[in-house]
Amino acid sequence: MKNEDSLLVQLIQAFKVLPGIGEKSAQRMSFHLLEKNKEGALNLSKLISKAVENIRNCSQCRNLTEQDICDICLDEKRDKTVLCVVESPTDVLAIENSGSFKGKYFVLMGRLSPIDGITPQDLGIPKLIESILNEDRKEVIIATSPTIEGDATSFYIKDQLSEKNILISRIAYGVPMGGELEYVDNTTLGRAIQGRREIN
Amino acid sequence: MKNEDSLLVQLIQAFKVLPGIGEKSAQRMSFHLLEKNKEGALNLSKLISKAVENIRNCSQCRNLTEQDICDICLDEKRDKTVLCVVESPTDVLAIENSGSFKGKYFVLMGRLSPIDGITPQDLGIPKLIESILNEDRKEVIIATSPTIEGDATSFYIKDQLSEKNILISRIAYGVPMGGELEYVDNTTLGRAIQGRREIN
Repeated sequence: MKNEDSLLVQLIQAFKVLPGIGEKSAQRMSFHLLEKNKEGALNLSKLISKAVENIRNCSQCRNLTEQDICDICLDEKRDKTVLCVVESPTDVLAIENSGSFKGKYFVLMGRLSPIDGITPQDLGIPKLIESILNEDRKEVIIATSPTIEGDATSFYIKDQLSEKNILISRIAYGVPMGGELEYVDNTTLGRAIQGRREIN
Repeated sequence: MKNEDSLLVQLIQAFKVLPGIGEKSAQRMSFHLLEKNKEGALNLSKLISKAVENIRNCSQCRNLTEQDICDICLDEKRDKTVLCVVESPTDVLAIENSGSFKGKYFVLMGRLSPIDGITPQDLGIPKLIESILNEDRKEVIIATSPTIEGDATSFYIKDQLSEKNILISRIAYGVPMGGELEYVDNTTLGRAIQGRREIN
């Protein structure tokens, strides 16, 4: 077991590429698969390679897809005039699951961060602006995360479109549904008060 | 993305075979590999299949190994007269890392649990007893976990060997090193007091 080149040690090391997985969890995963679920393990192995080989970015919205253009971009029933800008494919999944949006998406695959050297080009923002102007969008909903970088990304996109006749909105950030005010953190509460709306 | 048969959805489902991984973590892992680390993903995929195909149980101690008999069983320098009985390969790894044991191991791959239908045969206990008697062991250290099933497993093994002239011991369970008495739970403290030793 001490041999550094043993297959088991290599497998444990390989598991550590997963986010949030350290030595102990990697050990647990390796032993679990080898002792309890060899079939599931082989299936996982097969799907990882198949996914890496076949999944790429949609040439229109940059979301992950197996085709050149993803299902959402191809869907004629969705509203082309509204575009939702998100940071990652997980955000698309979350919004789709909420069932409250029927427009198109654009996935930045990150957020502006000069410190990490992430520029508007890396996020495909020039392409985003071009598609907004060419495709006759009426509203752009920006759904970047409520962080400093997310805010900066949002401002940058707004800035690029400021002279065009397009409604630019940002999703509401505030107290989550079912949340008790006393347990909500100060920043969230501050944003909820800032973002207050008149009751009709 | 909503298509149930899409490769991405299949990959997310496949990740859920890992212990402690639910829908959200599986999504995070899938997206992380596809967006940030395709090389690591392919390596992981390759090693999972290779490990499942090549790693089996040692025919002597039941530990995981790539050969018929594992390195520890083959190691002539280790003390054959002392045998440590553990529940799983992770326990072998933990004891090896502590550097405080130089004998041989026997891995039960579980613990006695009549409710789950796990019998002495499933744990290879008849084989363990046979090897203890045939191989001229002088001491058997039982290192099963301090749970009801771990205790039952320990008593069962002791019982099977009661008429033989072999020292049977169990590792000490008590207050962990660096632990403050006031924060130690009652059961642990009870065991620490029960297991007290004379100071020489």
